[in-house]
Amino acid sequence: MPHTDLPLDPACDLVLERVIDAPVARVWAAWVDPASLSQWWCPKPYRATDWALDLEPGGAFAFVVRSPEGEGFPYVGCVLEVEAPHRIVWTTALRAGFRPNPQTGDVPAFSCVVTFEADGERTRYRAVARHANAAGARVHTEMGFHEGWGAALDQLVSLVTA
Amino acid sequence: MPHTDLPLDPACDLVLERVIDAPVARVWAAWVDPASLSQWWCPKPYRATDWALDLEPGGAFAFVVRSPEGEGFPYVGCVLEVEAPHRIVWTTALRAGFRPNPQTGDVPAFSCVVTFEADGERTRYRAVARHANAAGARVHTEMGFHEGWGAALDQLVSLVTA
Repeated sequence: MPHTDLPLDPACDLVLERVIDAPVARVWAAWVDPASLSQWWCPKPYRATDWALDLEPGGAFAFVVRSPEGEGFPYVGCVLEVEAPHRIVWTTALRAGFRPNPQTGDVPAFSCVVTFEADGERTRYRAVARHANAAGARVHTEMGFHEGWGAALDQLVSLVTA
Repeated sequence: MPHTDLPLDPACDLVLERVIDAPVARVWAAWVDPASLSQWWCPKPYRATDWALDLEPGGAFAFVVRSPEGEGFPYVGCVLEVEAPHRIVWTTALRAGFRPNPQTGDVPAFSCVVTFEADGERTRYRAVARHANAAGARVHTEMGFHEGWGAALDQLVSLVTA
């Protein structure tokens, strides 16, 4: 059993699950293609642009969140595991080359395990954001994890079921 | 080229290099075996005990530093990449299952890329500790990185050349 399938810790982990009416290959493709990601990753009217996505351990997982006014907020993470088309793991604790990210103090670091499981022609989609502790999960919840990631997932679903 | 072979950043990376008069297989074996690690990892009279070392991405990289008086200081990290017998990458920014470690504020997080390259019957050994920034590397230097890791390496060399 891969270690990333360790049991959930309900106090520290935030979970987003959905059965998507599209096959795994299609959902995966929309997940790893920068052109698609730019369409669904950020709840509109924000957009995620300038993707650097390098699908191997130690690869970049970075983009810029662009406001409707054109302001840009860089987001820098690191890919940890890729098992196409079934799993990708990435973290905000590191950046490309496994280098630690500076500690910012405001946004709690998390690692995200996203799995894509075939259910006939549909996809059982699951994203688990793992935090250092319950305080990190709480802050992330208060920052709107479920609303934000849920709205983004709605956009992903629209894209792959269109 | 794996991402972990990215060029050094002299401001943020601390490097320990040595040509060891023992073959790669022997140095590697002493590096990944808890019984051996307990003998060389900490400069004596300290010892590293209770190893949890799981040689796959997301596996534990954890032990207890034991003082001569018997006090124990837990150390908890995560394995990121393993390419036996030539490379192991681990980080203090995460722990088992890729979960972020809590931010402590005192010890700067780092990721360590250790490589073992054959040079005839000898081993070109290299450990690179990659920090978030120059401040992290400076703190780690002031904490005695070179003295501590150098003394531990001396112990590893004694063990594999005995």
